[in-house]
Parts: sequence; structure tokens; C-alpha cells
Amino acid sequence: MSVRKQPVLGILGGGQLARMLALAAAPLGVNTLVVDSAADACAGQVAPLRLADWTDYAALEKFAAEVDVVTFDFENVPAETAHWLAERVAVFPDPRALAVAQDRLAEKTLFRQCGLQTPAFEAVDTRADLDRALAAIGAPAILKTRRLGYDGKGQFRIKQLADADAAWAALGAQAAAHGLILEAFVPFERELSVLAVRTREGDFRIWPLTQNWHTDGVLSLSLAPAPEVGALQQRAEDLARTLAERLGYVGVFALELFVKDGQLLGNEMAPRVHNSGHWTIEGAVASQFENHVRAVLGLPLGDTSAHGLSVMFNWIGDLPDAAPVLSTVDAHWHDYGKQPRPGRKVGHATVCAADAQSLALRVAAMAQALKRETQAEPGLSALS
Amino acid sequence: MSVRKQPVLGILGGGQLARMLALAAAPLGVNTLVVDSAADACAGQVAPLRLADWTDYAALEKFAAEVDVVTFDFENVPAETAHWLAERVAVFPDPRALAVAQDRLAEKTLFRQCGLQTPAFEAVDTRADLDRALAAIGAPAILKTRRLGYDGKGQFRIKQLADADAAWAALGAQAAAHGLILEAFVPFERELSVLAVRTREGDFRIWPLTQNWHTDGVLSLSLAPAPEVGALQQRAEDLARTLAERLGYVGVFALELFVKDGQLLGNEMAPRVHNSGHWTIEGAVASQFENHVRAVLGLPLGDTSAHGLSVMFNWIGDLPDAAPVLSTVDAHWHDYGKQPRPGRKVGHATVCAADAQSLALRVAAMAQALKRETQAEPGLSALS
Repeated sequence: MSVRKQPVLGILGGGQLARMLALAAAPLGVNTLVVDSAADACAGQVAPLRLADWTDYAALEKFAAEVDVVTFDFENVPAETAHWLAERVAVFPDPRALAVAQDRLAEKTLFRQCGLQTPAFEAVDTRADLDRALAAIGAPAILKTRRLGYDGKGQFRIKQLADADAAWAALGAQAAAHGLILEAFVPFERELSVLAVRTREGDFRIWPLTQNWHTDGVLSLSLAPAPEVGALQQRAEDLARTLAERLGYVGVFALELFVKDGQLLGNEMAPRVHNSGHWTIEGAVASQFENHVRAVLGLPLGDTSAHGLSVMFNWIGDLPDAAPVLSTVDAHWHDYGKQPRPGRKVGHATVCAADAQSLALRVAAMAQALKRETQAEPGLSALS
Repeated sequence: MSVRKQPVLGILGGGQLARMLALAAAPLGVNTLVVDSAADACAGQVAPLRLADWTDYAALEKFAAEVDVVTFDFENVPAETAHWLAERVAVFPDPRALAVAQDRLAEKTLFRQCGLQTPAFEAVDTRADLDRALAAIGAPAILKTRRLGYDGKGQFRIKQLADADAAWAALGAQAAAHGLILEAFVPFERELSVLAVRTREGDFRIWPLTQNWHTDGVLSLSLAPAPEVGALQQRAEDLARTLAERLGYVGVFALELFVKDGQLLGNEMAPRVHNSGHWTIEGAVASQFENHVRAVLGLPLGDTSAHGLSVMFNWIGDLPDAAPVLSTVDAHWHDYGKQPRPGRKVGHATVCAADAQSLALRVAAMAQALKRETQAEPGLSALS
């Protein structure tokens, strides 16, 4: 018996995704080292934390020497930082994939190249571009920053053509630095996401499609497997596989999709584990976190089948009382160990059951005890 | 929104049980602080570790001030240490329960008081006691230390009366310090364990009975729920509840049981989460680790129902190749992050399935790929 050295997974960013990755890595014998600029980054409660910002190359040099593989909790790590690290240590997903996902224009262009339709879009760099784009796309439309947007941030909804000045006042200053994009507003029927994972060797799997509901641009509730998706499951798998192969992607990623007239439209790609996949911790044989760790470490993938059905509630701003969740059969509490703050994702809960009727009963009773009936309502409608 | 302070669970001992407790505590928003005298204690990979031995009261004083509740990874923490801590901070289970479980004589006496029969036993403090006890009990019998024994350590099997001298030579030196006990050897039909949990308020639950197989005194394989237990499930629940109430027990404990002529006999009690309950991580709605954390922190208990059936393989000494486990559907790998060492528990794997036939197929294929057919064999026999 020789002395063993356990692999170390480095994670850029120390939020709840890094925290859940670290918790999934431990049973695999994989240790984690997290980098974040905040001393209270919540992943630091379950893994060693190095304090550094993305341009502290002295700290990053030391970090690179301590880890076997680097991955991301946060997709807006600067591309230069990711490239610099990739010259020193294995980085998955590849920084080129990160760069595409960081740019809404590159991302949507790629979607179309892969055969995934998108809402109409136009690049906007100047005030004149905005007028041209609005003339082409019409209203309603949404003006967004090309980079650094998430959870509805960096967006302005243009309800009518006369809103162009207000939109430019809100986001025009960011046009030079980040670029803007105007996207047609699509009155979609439902929002789905596909979580997918690909290994270094090209083994590829997706979990069952998830249906999602947002409030103020932030995920509020998910239901998985999404009901009555029919052929969309296979279509999403084919698209996600094409995209992953084109990018040489390694690890888990999410595609946010709209369904309009029964067809999938690509909204955006997250090059990491994703909030809409949190249900996989208890609701699938292998979770998105475990399979991401397996993929980036070069281990075989786990099974992505669902156990029954799951509903996930996101906790935004502050945690509700835990007791009604802890007292619900097959409900699972996830406190990220963060301080409360308006708009902040501080935790989630997943309720599981073998069938839709049992799940609806559990979700309804729990939501009532939590006074969260409004949050639960779209999920209950979809289950009925 | 006010600043929140997360509860901190202190754990005495930093082995794999502390490690799995810490991993279960994190999603509940509970932070963990571990005390161990070994700098490489494996729980230190997932939680902060304080280096101290059980008589370092300066370090323990500081530890007590940093935690909200103290519990145990290791039942042989000296009773004085546990009592000393209990004067400063909440300690669960109560040190009196720990003291009973540390002493085979007190433990078996309590079993009988609770209506749980045991193999015949006699206290042995001197060489003359041993002769008297052997005359009363007969051979075969097992001479054991009353305290500090686990995993078959501190035991001598007396096959015939003439072995008395050899038994005394092996263990007599420990009679003065720890006491000895002679127990009848029972040719049992099967070994079961019951995992139970009780809250501060007296809420009590058990998981389905587990069937266990040992090799050289160390757990090798578990199957849960144990097949064809009939009325033994209710009988075990009643006994475990009586025992827990008598001890005012808070947290998870295990009772190791023999089945002889269809009746339960008490072998020993572990006042902590237990190796035969590791299958509950994936095989039950709430695991023994999560429910122990909930119970000692004063939170409501999770459901103890099983999802289908599970077989757990213990990895002793060194880990086998992980790939055949990672590639088996619904098989789950647990590497404790320890250095290999003969006889050491370094990991386990749990294979789950919805029914006995699917489970048997998975277990058989995985065991063959691992060349662990002998280890799997009793479980496969019980499933067929």
C-alpha cells in the first residue's frame, strides 16, 4: 500500500455552486480549493478558501500549483484570467467555451449555427444601431448588455418604439465597454432548461428537461421532469450534444430554452452547473454537481435518470422558516450559509415524490405552511 | 434582515463518521468544528479541525466556547471528558448514555432490563472468575474487554474449556483497567441491526432493519431493508424505543442484533451513527447522518423510509478501483480520504435499485468487475 495523494479541484468563485460542488466532490475522494475575493464566500464553510481577485496573478500562480483541475462557480471570470490559468493547469470547461457563453451575441450566433432557433436579435453598439435594430425587430423587445448580465441584470424592456431613449439612457453607457444586443420579446408558452454533461472523452448525457418559472428575472420555481415534453426531450438532447461537441465542452452546462408554437428557441447558455438543476441532488440518480466533478476529473459519468418528480423552490433574499420544509416527507432543505440581502440567492428546497399527485399534495401543504402559495402556484398548475 | 449566525456542531473525533456528519450538516446551514489528535483526520478535509487530545482541557475549553452542540464520531471519548464538556455546552447523546454503551456489562444488563434477551454473560475480573464463568456458560464462548473494544478488537474466542489459559494470557492484563466479560457464543442465523433516532422532545423513528455480514469481526456487507423480517421490525422498534427512552437518548444509535430461533438477541449498542447505516445516504429519504444532525440541533426529523433496496460494500484496508462502481447504475462511491492501512475502514459503496432482482443483477456485475464476488456472495444469496 503506497501513500496516496487525493486530486484537488480548484474552483474560481466561492458561492453556492462552489459549495455544492465541494460537497459532491468529497465522497469521490476529491478535495476542493476555492478562490474568491470575499472572505465570507459561502463555499469557504466547506472547503479551504484562498482570498484573491481575478487579477492577483501571484495568488493565482500559487493556486494553480496546488490544484489538479480548475473549474468555475462563476462564468464571468475574465477571459484573460481563464486563459492565463489554462497555460498552467487543466481548466474545464475550456476558456473558449466560457468566452462564447459570456457574450450574448456569440452565444446566439452559435445556437443558430447548431440549428437552434432564437428570438430575432441585432448587435447594438451606438444609438443609431438601436434605431436600426428596433426598425428591424419591432417592439416589444429587450435591450441587454452583451456581457456580464445574469438574473435579469443589465436588461431594459422596450415596450414600444418610443421607449428607445429611456433604454439608451439606462444601458447606452455600457455599449462601449460590453456591447449591447437587442432581442425580440417572445411571448413564449413555457420556459424549459436542459442540463447536460460531457466528459473529456466525449461521453455525453442530459438530465430530463426542467420547467422553470422566473420572478423579476430570477428563477423562482422548477419542476422536473418537465411534463408533456414529448419529442422536445430528444430534440434538446440533439441540440445540446451538437453544441457541446462544437465547443469541445467538458463538464456540466445548461441551456435555457423557450417553447413557442411547440418549438424550442435558445435563450442563453450557462457554462456551469445551474440553478435549474439543483433538483438533481435528490431527484436524480447522479446530481449535476457530482457529474460535473466526475467529468472535469476524468471519471466515468453517473446516471442522469430522475427518481420520480421534483419541485424546487428558490429562496431569494432571506430564508423562510425551515420547519415546514424539514417536516414535509421527502423535502430537502439547502441553506447556502449566506447573509440575507435583497435579491440574493440564499437557499433552496426540493420536494420529491414518486408521482405527480403525491408531489402536488406535498408541495401545496408545504407552500401553505410557508405562506408561499404564489411561488408554488405555477408548479401546481403544471402538475394538475 | 438581521445578521444571522449559523449554528456550529462540535464533533469529538474526526474520522469518516464526522466527515459524513459534516457533509450532511452543511445543507442544513449547520457548520461543523471537529476535534481530533491526528492532523490528518479525514473529517478535516471538509470541516475545520482543532488538534487536541481528550485531556487537553485548555483546547477543549476553547472548543466548547465555539460550538452550540457537541456530539461524537467516536464512542470511546473518556467519560470524564464528555462530562466535563457537558457542564459547559449541550452534549448529545448525554454522556450517561455514552458510559452505558462503553461498558459491555452495563449495556447487556440494560438490554435485559428493556426486555431484549442477550447471549448468556458473566463479569470476569480475575482468573478465578473466568473459571466460574466458563463453568456457568460453557464453551464455545468469547472473552471480551468490557470497555474500548470495537470491530472485533479486544476479543478472544474460547472454543473449549482448555482455552481458558490462552484467553487469560491474551486479555487478563486488561482485566484490572477495563474489566472483562465472558459471553456465550451463539450460533445465530443472521445478524441484523436497527438504526434509530430520537429528538430532544422524544420524537422517535427507526429505519428499516439492515442485515449485516462480518469478516474477521469487521462489517463487510449490508443489505437493507433486511428481507423477510416480518414481526421483527416492530419488535426491534419497540425495543429501541424503550432503550432510548430509558437513556433519555438524543441522536442516532445502532443496536446490533442476532436472530436465533426467530428471536432477537442484543449484541451491542453503538451510541452514534453506525457503519451498517451508511446505505441510508442514498437508500433512505433522510440519512442517519442528516437525522443525527437534526436531532442534536433540535430540528424536526426527516423521513426514515427506504427508497427501494440497497447493498453496501465496506472497503477495508485499501480502496478497490473506483471505475466499476462509478459505471454501475445507481451505485455510489464513498472515499473517506484516508491513507490505506491494513484493517482500516477507508471507504464504502452503496448500490441501490427499485427491486431485489435489479439489485442482484447490479451487485453481481459490479462485484465481478471488482473481483469482489466473495464479499458480495451473502448479499446475493439473501436477495435470491
